[in-house]
Amino acid sequence: MSEKIKTLLEALPYIKKFFGTTFVIKYGGAAMEEEHLKKEFAKDVALLKYVGINPVVVHGGGPKIGRLLKELKIPTKFVDGLRVTDKKTLEVVEMVLSGSINKEIVKNINDMGGKAIGLSGKDGRLLVARKMEGKDIGLVGEIVNVDIAIIKDINRHGYIPVIAPLADGVDGNSYNINADTAAGSIAKALSAEKLILLTDVEGVLDKEEKLLSSLKKSEIDTLVKNKIISGGMIPKVDCCLDALEGGVKETHIIDGKIPHAILLEIFTDSGIGTKITGGA
Amino acid sequence: MSEKIKTLLEALPYIKKFFGTTFVIKYGGAAMEEEHLKKEFAKDVALLKYVGINPVVVHGGGPKIGRLLKELKIPTKFVDGLRVTDKKTLEVVEMVLSGSINKEIVKNINDMGGKAIGLSGKDGRLLVARKMEGKDIGLVGEIVNVDIAIIKDINRHGYIPVIAPLADGVDGNSYNINADTAAGSIAKALSAEKLILLTDVEGVLDKEEKLLSSLKKSEIDTLVKNKIISGGMIPKVDCCLDALEGGVKETHIIDGKIPHAILLEIFTDSGIGTKITGGA
Amino acid sequence: MSEKIKTLLEALPYIKKFFGTTFVIKYGGAAMEEEHLKKEFAKDVALLKYVGINPVVVHGGGPKIGRLLKELKIPTKFVDGLRVTDKKTLEVVEMVLSGSINKEIVKNINDMGGKAIGLSGKDGRLLVARKMEGKDIGLVGEIVNVDIAIIKDINRHGYIPVIAPLADGVDGNSYNINADTAAGSIAKALSAEKLILLTDVEGVLDKEEKLLSSLKKSEIDTLVKNKIISGGMIPKVDCCLDALEGGVKETHIIDGKIPHAILLEIFTDSGIGTKITGGA
Amino acid sequence: MSEKIKTLLEALPYIKKFFGTTFVIKYGGAAMEEEHLKKEFAKDVALLKYVGINPVVVHGGGPKIGRLLKELKIPTKFVDGLRVTDKKTLEVVEMVLSGSINKEIVKNINDMGGKAIGLSGKDGRLLVARKMEGKDIGLVGEIVNVDIAIIKDINRHGYIPVIAPLADGVDGNSYNINADTAAGSIAKALSAEKLILLTDVEGVLDKEEKLLSSLKKSEIDTLVKNKIISGGMIPKVDCCLDALEGGVKETHIIDGKIPHAILLEIFTDSGIGTKITGGA
Amino acid sequence: MSEKIKTLLEALPYIKKFFGTTFVIKYGGAAMEEEHLKKEFAKDVALLKYVGINPVVVHGGGPKIGRLLKELKIPTKFVDGLRVTDKKTLEVVEMVLSGSINKEIVKNINDMGGKAIGLSGKDGRLLVARKMEGKDIGLVGEIVNVDIAIIKDINRHGYIPVIAPLADGVDGNSYNINADTAAGSIAKALSAEKLILLTDVEGVLDKEEKLLSSLKKSEIDTLVKNKIISGGMIPKVDCCLDALEGGVKETHIIDGKIPHAILLEIFTDSGIGTKITGGA
Amino acid sequence: MSEKIKTLLEALPYIKKFFGTTFVIKYGGAAMEEEHLKKEFAKDVALLKYVGINPVVVHGGGPKIGRLLKELKIPTKFVDGLRVTDKKTLEVVEMVLSGSINKEIVKNINDMGGKAIGLSGKDGRLLVARKMEGKDIGLVGEIVNVDIAIIKDINRHGYIPVIAPLADGVDGNSYNINADTAAGSIAKALSAEKLILLTDVEGVLDKEEKLLSSLKKSEIDTLVKNKIISGGMIPKVDCCLDALEGGVKETHIIDGKIPHAILLEIFTDSGIGTKITGGA
Repeated sequence: MSEKIKTLLEALPYIKKFFGTTFVIKYGGAAMEEEHLKKEFAKDVALLKYVGINPVVVHGGGPKIGRLLKELKIPTKFVDGLRVTDKKTLEVVEMVLSGSINKEIVKNINDMGGKAIGLSGKDGRLLVARKMEGKDIGLVGEIVNVDIAIIKDINRHGYIPVIAPLADGVDGNSYNINADTAAGSIAKALSAEKLILLTDVEGVLDKEEKLLSSLKKSEIDTLVKNKIISGGMIPKVDCCLDALEGGVKETHIIDGKIPHAILLEIFTDSGIGTKITGGA
Repeated sequence: MSEKIKTLLEALPYIKKFFGTTFVIKYGGAAMEEEHLKKEFAKDVALLKYVGINPVVVHGGGPKIGRLLKELKIPTKFVDGLRVTDKKTLEVVEMVLSGSINKEIVKNINDMGGKAIGLSGKDGRLLVARKMEGKDIGLVGEIVNVDIAIIKDINRHGYIPVIAPLADGVDGNSYNINADTAAGSIAKALSAEKLILLTDVEGVLDKEEKLLSSLKKSEIDTLVKNKIISGGMIPKVDCCLDALEGGVKETHIIDGKIPHAILLEIFTDSGIGTKITGGA
Repeated sequence: MSEKIKTLLEALPYIKKFFGTTFVIKYGGAAMEEEHLKKEFAKDVALLKYVGINPVVVHGGGPKIGRLLKELKIPTKFVDGLRVTDKKTLEVVEMVLSGSINKEIVKNINDMGGKAIGLSGKDGRLLVARKMEGKDIGLVGEIVNVDIAIIKDINRHGYIPVIAPLADGVDGNSYNINADTAAGSIAKALSAEKLILLTDVEGVLDKEEKLLSSLKKSEIDTLVKNKIISGGMIPKVDCCLDALEGGVKETHIIDGKIPHAILLEIFTDSGIGTKITGGA
Repeated sequence: MSEKIKTLLEALPYIKKFFGTTFVIKYGGAAMEEEHLKKEFAKDVALLKYVGINPVVVHGGGPKIGRLLKELKIPTKFVDGLRVTDKKTLEVVEMVLSGSINKEIVKNINDMGGKAIGLSGKDGRLLVARKMEGKDIGLVGEIVNVDIAIIKDINRHGYIPVIAPLADGVDGNSYNINADTAAGSIAKALSAEKLILLTDVEGVLDKEEKLLSSLKKSEIDTLVKNKIISGGMIPKVDCCLDALEGGVKETHIIDGKIPHAILLEIFTDSGIGTKITGGA
Repeated sequence: MSEKIKTLLEALPYIKKFFGTTFVIKYGGAAMEEEHLKKEFAKDVALLKYVGINPVVVHGGGPKIGRLLKELKIPTKFVDGLRVTDKKTLEVVEMVLSGSINKEIVKNINDMGGKAIGLSGKDGRLLVARKMEGKDIGLVGEIVNVDIAIIKDINRHGYIPVIAPLADGVDGNSYNINADTAAGSIAKALSAEKLILLTDVEGVLDKEEKLLSSLKKSEIDTLVKNKIISGGMIPKVDCCLDALEGGVKETHIIDGKIPHAILLEIFTDSGIGTKITGGA
Repeated sequence: MSEKIKTLLEALPYIKKFFGTTFVIKYGGAAMEEEHLKKEFAKDVALLKYVGINPVVVHGGGPKIGRLLKELKIPTKFVDGLRVTDKKTLEVVEMVLSGSINKEIVKNINDMGGKAIGLSGKDGRLLVARKMEGKDIGLVGEIVNVDIAIIKDINRHGYIPVIAPLADGVDGNSYNINADTAAGSIAKALSAEKLILLTDVEGVLDKEEKLLSSLKKSEIDTLVKNKIISGGMIPKVDCCLDALEGGVKETHIIDGKIPHAILLEIFTDSGIGTKITGGA
């Protein structure tokens, strides 16, 4: 029995270190799909709040959106492999993100003893966006303003904000926002201690496919040039670098398929994914 | 030009009277369907906030739910004429309420210069429910607890809460709640100055079908006994009486089809619907 | 009836724009003499407070001072056309300003539903002055310090400050202060959104005697050089320019004889007087 | 030199005893007429504030009113020996009270290092009155409501409120209020620690004309019955008894002609006047 | 590795349950003597604070006092087996309690990442006592007043109060207080969630010498009557009963020799000692 | 009798001048030894708090430490005339400082009507130190960090902090700190209005041994060069200069043997010791 308590006490230095800070967590992928991972994630987030950390969850959409589009027989056009979000599609996206996934996450956290509040980026004009430049893929936006007043209020009153990545458009439309980008922007606006991206891969790997558990900003360039970081990992890494430049202290890319990935990354010295920090 | 200002000043005594108070508004029916009524409602609510009143909006679902159920070919069973809400139906209800209608209202209010925050009754466990007693119509709940902490926080920080009538169940399920009932319960918990039910009828009518613009609690009994109040008006009137007993000061049943119905009811002496107050 | 509400809603964008800001209003002239204008002014000020603006009223003296001096047979000396304020005269000035006019304005605002607090510049040493340099016209002062702590406290607690332009002298005397100057100094100290001078003329006129409804600081010079602005308008305009340099955002010279002049200037796009703003 | 400090330290137990409490002081009579007494009173009040007591000054009018009425040749009617306050008289009363005496007291306290704010009972509707019942002596009122919000705000921010006994009438008129009564009502509303009436007599005297330095409520009756308390002392004593019943802890009738009468009464064990307390 | 995190999460329901509550812990015995137990106690207390509980530590003296008395050759008189605390003895007691033990506990907690503040009951007159009635054993007091203002301030600002059981006497002397009693009195004054007595025994045992892990107030009587609770356990149990009557919710008698006894008692269902609660 | 009050009022300008400021007082020497001086010091400090000044007392040890070391037969080694503080010695030092002297000062102030809280520099890690460089005299430290959060909290809540000059070491040891240095460091960290060193000499003397009641920083150099300031006065003067450079406004070296030395220095124009201020 005493083992249990010893373990609890091993967390003390980490708790002390992060007491009073803010973590923005991009939640998505397998961790948002599999039932047991969902519960474990919710428990992790509730625990963080109780030990004095302010978690802010930003979630993505996942396969649920595609399923509903299909069931509703809304055809999907593609431009260069990217789905075009027309008005009808956006309606579905919004219903799934804000009405289904968001509220499920809220309920899970509440069931685990936390007090979560689900928001969309449209609430309190938290996120304001304009149409993304470049290819025309419809109502997909890029953020032009973040108003964190509501997040700070919610944090201060003991709640955990859970945010769906939708935004009010400067042109009167609503926009869908890439969830990583939304999380990064919110982390910057909050001067967060950490931005944590939950993904479906281990983290950043070296050329022998071994996990790199810690990287400096300056090391990233070389890895990209040598194509060791490539494909889908590039936007993830860019999101982290952007956050670091915007004042976030540390960023993490971790594997959401590992149960309690967040706590493992934070409450152990080695961590389980890749930590990217500023400096050379 | 001076006319305009005179009109503005006529509102002063009403503004003074209600400064600092809370109005819970059940929003539904035609006012939530027709495009121009939607905008006008949003404007009304934004104005209320700016003149020092705290509006709290609780909205219903309307035909959008039926439409989506039909599109998704989810069959609807009925028990004594009431739709049975099974798990799949509830998912659709929640997506439409929390993901579509709620966020549309939020956006409309924000577009009119207000700062709205959309919530579901599941956020912060604002509403906790159990399965409704009596007929088994599935996941339709009755409220057992209201936690208004989050509403008060939101009000204090200058936001307008917009609430979808869903609830956390004591049994772990989610529940759909009748919107009138949800509005009434929230009004009671807030000791609101007013509960305003937006409907698709003029108000309570006498036997000559003339509008009764003001009623005391004690007069209602007679009207019900004499079947002058009947049908769908009975639950509306019950909702008002229940709110009055629970500490709400005044209740209103008004016609949402009239543009700016709320302001007309509040900012004119005669009002446009029926005001029901306590006492004999 | 619906007309009335539409008018009310037209004010919404203006209310939103000025919500939470401070307006310093120099009150004097006909608006302070005619009974109906007095009431209308009081109503305007009360309304501003209810819609979230913090009005600060600084008033002048007007003919009442002359009348009482005459009744008391206190002879008036003049130096270059300016009345010399000796000790006995100042006593009368102070009684009329602080004891009669100030309290009448307070009462009028309170009767209209506002909560006004009447102060003299001597209260809490709000205004500290020294003898004006140049001609010796007795106890007429120029301001050397403004302590706005008491105004801010009063504003925050929901009251409307009404200020008589008297000041504590650094030499132990009391001093009479020009009301425009007092209003300007207070506006600067408060970093007010607006300084509004209520006068008995339309505003600044061009050479065809047509009202100039909007002027930039840089345009004033030319108008003065060309003697289009002249006479009593020069100190008014100087007062505005000084306020703009001191951090006030916008200044207005408007005609107090027009009923509800303040609301008309603020709540309509064109306004009714002259708005002077910084920049070229 | 050390003598001085010893004296200072003798005040410590009294300072400790009254730290954080509120004293309402009715200021009038000789103490408000003679130049040196005025300065000494102002110094006393400033000192009280610095040692942690909240003094609230309510002042009367005195001979200045009569003098101005005479100079203005406003005739005075009398009913049973009481001056009738018609509209014209009230105007003079208000100018002298609020515009002259009030501001002089404020200036004196400020000159002594305090921060005073002069108010009339009309400011913030601090005092609301109706026409006094009984004899018709015009605009003389009896208080029907006291709103101490503004006094509390002013106290909390380090200011000393100085109040002229005028009131808003429920009938729209302004009313003159007896200063003792006003002080008593304000003391009750504030649940003051002390009500101190500065008079021109030593205090309550026994049948040998010796000062009674301490009296219980119950002893007063006997003294009145035996006509040892009589004449002008009766309303003073009644004012004290009324305050005690309304929750004031101690009341004092002291001689304002003695320099620093207030400090002597408070900071010495014997005091210099009569202390009246509740109980038998 | 994942094991560690699972363990951490098992604490979540307990953390949630006690979040924001206050625990008063009587610290003494072996837990205050052995080096490793001291560190573990300090760690436990620091952890409690970080997970949202407000621990208040009240410590005893132990053998250190006897040792110093002996070294200083201060003779000890006994009355009925109780040490008489004369002035010289009290000086030593105070030096050891406030100067040595108290500051050592503070340092240990600070070394473990907490922020402790050491106080004696004399600080801020936290504890006021009079000479204990009954036998004359010198300067041993019983508490007549507890002023928890300073504890609440310290708690609110994130510090952990550590209190030595000395008290200001109403007679001007200082008094030594039994540490259990001091802890109980402070727990009552704070309406604490828990009073935890760290002892050198397992807890309350039944007649087979088996630990009773949970007892109701009503069961205690029987156990005492049957002499199953006897000797030194009686004052411990009385201290708990007194605390329960005074509004403390739960009390615990636990074995300080078990490492991390506090966390084991709180964060496991069975606990390790005896929990005594109110009711039959 | 009136004399007494006049004296009280002479303090008013000083009270006004220092209202709301912080004085750090190094307490030691005779003033901490003689019974009547102790009481007078305590009274002075209590009075300062009541008249709106925040006194912070830092005390030294004095002969009590030597006495106890002798009684305990702990031998004292000396290095160049300085006592070496080994572990055993430090234990005694700490017991005397924190357990005996500190609590006696607290009790004296409380007896005089103040509310004192005794702290050691180890509480809340108020003082953090490292081993002093230069000669090895054991556990004597130099301050590397001052955390005044706890002092500010205590001040704000109406308490008087009394601080024993011990510190947490960066190396895990505890350290004894020179009391003058501790007072100076705390004064700097608080940006105190005054640092007052109570000594056993009159102040700084000129070559005729006459007291210099006021010195500028620039005058000190000459006095030191000319050896007019020499011996034990040099570290006192250095302490003052260091404080002035660190932002303290004024420093005083005064004679603690004069009863009420602090009040005499502060509340009279000439003062009784030497005031050292910045500038040339």
